Amino acid sequence: MANKHIDHIGIAVKDLEKAIATYEKLLGTECYKQEEVESQKVNTAFFKTGESKIELLGATADDSVIAKYVEKKGEGMHHVAFEVEDIHAEMKRLRKEGFTVLSDEPSRGADNKLVAFVHPKDNNGVLVEICQST
Amino acid sequence: MANKHIDHIGIAVKDLEKAIATYEKLLGTECYKQEEVESQKVNTAFFKTGESKIELLGATADDSVIAKYVEKKGEGMHHVAFEVEDIHAEMKRLRKEGFTVLSDEPSRGADNKLVAFVHPKDNNGVLVEICQST
Repeated sequence: MANKHIDHIGIAVKDLEKAIATYEKLLGTECYKQEEVESQKVNTAFFKTGESKIELLGATADDSVIAKYVEKKGEGMHHVAFEVEDIHAEMKRLRKEGFTVLSDEPSRGADNKLVAFVHPKDNNGVLVEICQST
Repeated sequence: MANKHIDHIGIAVKDLEKAIATYEKLLGTECYKQEEVESQKVNTAFFKTGESKIELLGATADDSVIAKYVEKKGEGMHHVAFEVEDIHAEMKRLRKEGFTVLSDEPSRGADNKLVAFVHPKDNNGVLVEICQST
């Protein structure tokens, strides 16, 4: 990942509409997109900040990973995503380095990107996403 | 903050040396700087990722905020920092918008920056730092 950047920080929230209003004030910029990711049972809301984005995540169902996260840990930073050139090569590299990649193949995330996650136990409690634009 | 970027993500860790080795493998890039911030009783280690940085934070004393954080919540993402042009103006703007800025004046952080923090209760559990290069 050496030459790539932070694509986004994902923040788990209880009430997406309220959170959007908060982050518009905090960041001084408008939410430029909302998008549902059905496979993960979340609604997402995006804010631009330089080459990165802030992604607010609100659950659309009680069994969404985000609902479970908020119930267990409260609202807060849920993951950090790094853009990579070639997600398949990066998944292979990370496995070789001993990291636990949480799927055999990338899945389709927000922004129509290919995404995969690295288990937080391997990264000092940080859930790491890698993503590739398609 | 509309036109600025994520300066860094701060990650609280127990063992800084081990965490540096982990993040060098994860990010595929070497730690380019370590710096002690005596006022906050932490050692920091930095990694470049695009225009942003990953900042690992290890406590240097049991009463460091980072030691307390790790004891209470475990290792993980501790704060996100946004670069701003004028920290005094931004602190004033945020207060006016109803956010709780945690100091009257900016303090001196890593990288010799002026820094201030916004209380996580105002931002869905996210401790937000604003910083200005000097």
